[in-house]
Parts: sequence; C-alpha cells; structure tokens
Amino acid sequence: MGRVAVTDGMAESAVQQLRDAGHHVDLEPTSLDGFDAVVIRSATKMTADAIAAAPSLKLIGRAGVGVDNIDLEAATEAGILVCNTPGSSTHSVVEMTIGHLLASVRHLATADRDLRKGAWTKKALKGTELSGKRLGFIGFGRISQGVGRAAKAFGMELHGFDPYLPLEVAEAEGCTLHDDVNDVFRLCTHIAVHCNLTDETHHLVNASSLSLMPSIGADGVACGNHLVSCARGGIVDEAAVLTALESGVLTSCALDVFEVEPPTDNPLLQHPNFHGSPHIGAATLEAQGRIGAEMAELLIGFFAGTTPRSVVNRAVLD
Amino acid sequence: MGRVAVTDGMAESAVQQLRDAGHHVDLEPTSLDGFDAVVIRSATKMTADAIAAAPSLKLIGRAGVGVDNIDLEAATEAGILVCNTPGSSTHSVVEMTIGHLLASVRHLATADRDLRKGAWTKKALKGTELSGKRLGFIGFGRISQGVGRAAKAFGMELHGFDPYLPLEVAEAEGCTLHDDVNDVFRLCTHIAVHCNLTDETHHLVNASSLSLMPSIGADGVACGNHLVSCARGGIVDEAAVLTALESGVLTSCALDVFEVEPPTDNPLLQHPNFHGSPHIGAATLEAQGRIGAEMAELLIGFFAGTTPRSVVNRAVLD
Repeated sequence: MGRVAVTDGMAESAVQQLRDAGHHVDLEPTSLDGFDAVVIRSATKMTADAIAAAPSLKLIGRAGVGVDNIDLEAATEAGILVCNTPGSSTHSVVEMTIGHLLASVRHLATADRDLRKGAWTKKALKGTELSGKRLGFIGFGRISQGVGRAAKAFGMELHGFDPYLPLEVAEAEGCTLHDDVNDVFRLCTHIAVHCNLTDETHHLVNASSLSLMPSIGADGVACGNHLVSCARGGIVDEAAVLTALESGVLTSCALDVFEVEPPTDNPLLQHPNFHGSPHIGAATLEAQGRIGAEMAELLIGFFAGTTPRSVVNRAVLD
Repeated sequence: MGRVAVTDGMAESAVQQLRDAGHHVDLEPTSLDGFDAVVIRSATKMTADAIAAAPSLKLIGRAGVGVDNIDLEAATEAGILVCNTPGSSTHSVVEMTIGHLLASVRHLATADRDLRKGAWTKKALKGTELSGKRLGFIGFGRISQGVGRAAKAFGMELHGFDPYLPLEVAEAEGCTLHDDVNDVFRLCTHIAVHCNLTDETHHLVNASSLSLMPSIGADGVACGNHLVSCARGGIVDEAAVLTALESGVLTSCALDVFEVEPPTDNPLLQHPNFHGSPHIGAATLEAQGRIGAEMAELLIGFFAGTTPRSVVNRAVLD
C-alpha cells in the first residue's frame, strides 16, 4: 500500500481510482514526511528544503507538464523520481492558443469591452485572416504540432525553431524547421511560443527578434505582427512586448503566462492590443480529468514496481 | 461606359479596376439618379422610395452577402438587378465563428477583463474543450461548411438543420442533417447560426429550443450549452438568451449581430458570460479586398452585357 499526499487538488475520479487500488490518499496533508509520494500542481514549490524535510518521499508527481517549481537537482540527489503527465493537457493548450490567435487578429476582447461601454466600434475593428499567413513556432513539440494541424486547416504555412527535434518529425507535420531562430521571426507575421523555460529560452522573444518580423503576410496582406504564448512566463520579454505594441512593431500580443504570476502593476495588461488570461491553458475539465487519470495510473504502476515512463530526472535511474 | 455610385466605400484597388476599365465611379454621390449602378454595403437602405428616386438605376450591387437592406420587391418591379458577392467573406466569417466559440468556452473575454482589473481569476475560469462535443448548425451553407471543416479538425461531431440543402452536400462534409430543427438542439451542446433572416428563421433560436440542449457533451463532459451567431440579428431571440444565461440553460453566448444595431441599453451585453462584437464577421482586409474585386468584375461584366451569376432577385430576369 502506498501513502500519497495531494497538495494542490486532484480530480475526484483519480483519487477514487487510487483508493480503489488500496492506496492511502491524504488531500490535506500537514507535512510531507511519512508519505511515499506527493502529487502537486504548480502552486506547491518543491524546494531543496521541502525535499530535505520529507525523507520518506520516493516520488514527486507533477499533475501537469512544467517542473520549474521542483528543485530537480535536490530531488535527484535524494533519489526521488520526478514524474509529470506530459500529454494530458496538450489538446487544451492547442485550443487555447488558436482561440487567442483568432481573438487577437479579430480584436474580440476590444470588441466585447467596447460593446459593454455602449460603443459600436465596427469601423475601428477591421481585422485580418489567419489564412495565407506564416505561423512561426518557438519549439515544435506536441503542443506546436497540434496547433500546426489546426493552423493548416485555416490555410497557414508552418515554420519552426526546435534544436531538439528531428527534422523528419517536423516535416511529417508540414513544418519547415530553421537552424537560426531569427529566420523564423524574419519569415513569420504570427509567432506561437511552445517551449520550456530554460536558460537558453529566457527572453528568447525580445526587442531584437520582434523587430525582424515582416508585418506583411505571405499573401501580401498588411496584417501586422502577432505574438501568442501559452508556454511559460520568462520566455517572452514583457517589457519588449509593451514597447513593440506601443511602436506598432506588434499589432497584437496574447499571453496566458507571465514573468511574475499573478502579474502586479504590469502596464502591459492595460494596452488595448494586449489579450491576457491567467495561466489557464490547461484549465479545462477534460485536461484535469486526463491528468488525474494519468497520475493515478502512474502511481498505481509505481507502487507495483514499474518505473514510470515520464520520469523527468532520468539521472536518478542510473 | 457605366456610371457607378459607391455609397458605403469600396476597396481602392476595386475602384481603380473599374476606372481602368473606363467606367465612371463616384465615391460621394449626392443623389443616385443618373447612375446605372450603385454599390452599397449594409449602411445604405435601398427602400422603395430610394429606388423610385433613381429611375436610371439598372443594378444594385451589395458588396457583401445580406440583402435585408434592399426592398427586393420594389427593385424587381423597377426592373433593377440586385447582386451580391456571396463567397468573398466566407472564410472571414468562418474564422470569426471559431474564434468566438473558442473564446467563449475558455472565458477569454472575462479573463482579459479580470486581468485588466488586477484580478487573477485562474481558479474561477475553468473551461472545456470543443473536442468530443457536437456542433449543431442552423443552416448548412458555405459558411457552416467551412466552420464544420475547422470544427472537425478540433474533434467535433457535426449536425445540422437546412431544409434547402441536398443531404449529399452535408454528407460529403461529414454533417448529419435533421428534418426537425429541435433534434439539432436536443443533440448538441454547441450551436452555430449561419442562415438568412427570413420570416421562417425569425426567432428560430428561442427559449423553447434552447431548453432542449443537453448540457452534457457527447463525450460525457459537463460542458454546458454554448451558442454563437455571426449571421443576422433577429434569428436569435435575445431576450430568451439573456434568460437562459441567467438560469444557466446557456453557459455562454457570443453574438456578432443584433436585433437592433447598434444595440441600445441591451442588458444582454452586460452579462458576464456574453461575448459580443459589433457585426465584424466580414470586417477583414482580405474579405474587403475580395468583395471589391468580385464587385468590380461583376460590374465590368454587366456593362459588357453579361448577366451576373449572383443575381438575388432572379424574377427580374423573367
């Protein structure tokens, strides 16, 4: 029998699945010590101190994708497996990204805001189509591939930068990969960010890269430049985005993630052509259900002696 | 040489095309009398009186689709051809509809509004995916077919009501047509309106039809019910929509068109789960460009003696 602490909530059906398999689940643990595994989302910070305070832990389960709230080095040194549920939220983030893109190029947030104020701003809200434009991906993993399929259905051309992906995978999805990330900015009027936050990707989208964007679509339409990120705060330089919106280098920017969350006194949020959401890319009933089920299965397997497939700190297995 | 009055604007390139072909174009006519053709959008109302006051007119060109601002009977009696540009705005309305749908199920307008107020409402904004749900079309013409292709890419199942469409056309698009419009409401958690406004379709979406919607998606997810219309005001009973949003029968409603435009003191616009836009479904650079080009070609052909393909009042040809 495994002892599982759940600190940031878990789908009811998944908790039941674990209990039905004979495991103990505590949804309101006061300390992590004495537990074999802890299931967290993004709110719990598994720092080196938190890890040292729970010597019984054998597994940290991240119900979701990003593990930037976990000190991976400390976990590895302590011999603790860190696992996530990488595929569960993919489709939710895909729909969110396309939603933000379409809403941005058609001014939907502004339209709604104006209508509520009693203003009929039909003439001011001329937009552009996604069709006929180039979409550039920063990172071309699972989420980008899903966004790419939808974007192709709208008639977009796909370009990407991803030094870790085999060219054939991108080719099979109809996406041209470029060795130089700046070539993606030079070619594309629309940029979607879907990579991890690392030292390499920090402020990868900045004043210099944004200034390369062409403003004129591949179809010759003066659609301006558009940026969307539902990945992680910190990849996009928010100060540079504000300047670019003010100067017209960017026509719109939609962010679901921020350098500081919640953002405080961030003037970017007040720009009329900014569209924001509070890190809800995976916040759907469907994704939460799939994440819970994937985590429950992972833990049940782990307690039965199986090494989970989604171990993030593979060095711990050596 | 033809004399063309343009009352609501026209793409520059299209005006040039007409002038290059030797025709006279007046962009600020003081009267329509003396002109062979008038090009209008939705702002100009071609009433029986307006038609009687311009005995020289042979053609009314509607740069766009809907002809509800033209007295067709009066035009037919006066022997005036009424033509529109039916295909030019299709893709723009398709992208708008999908944008509104995705924005609605993910609360994008609310998210943006909250962020601007300094509220981080991540927990309150749990949404649902389009994937796995049924989308019901009221009318399954060109626009619905385009929306259907995109919706299928997101994993939706298509149903529709269209008494004027051959079953095979819908079948070829993977959409099941139903004889009874209420069956579409009974089956579908998501409804998209894409038909003309006629006596038959006035308030076709009403309290009774909305009450039939299932709230539970085809995939078993409690996604609620969602309505979007980028067609014409008057097909959707706005008072019924407000009541349905208040009672929870509808989880969201997005409207680009209204019974009265601009809407005045409409309490619907203030509901938190309402997403509005000011009739901008075709308001893209691409659609306006295509509309202008299609209208210019139509007029050039007409002045050369060809009957346009898009004559709306075909009785005038008898």
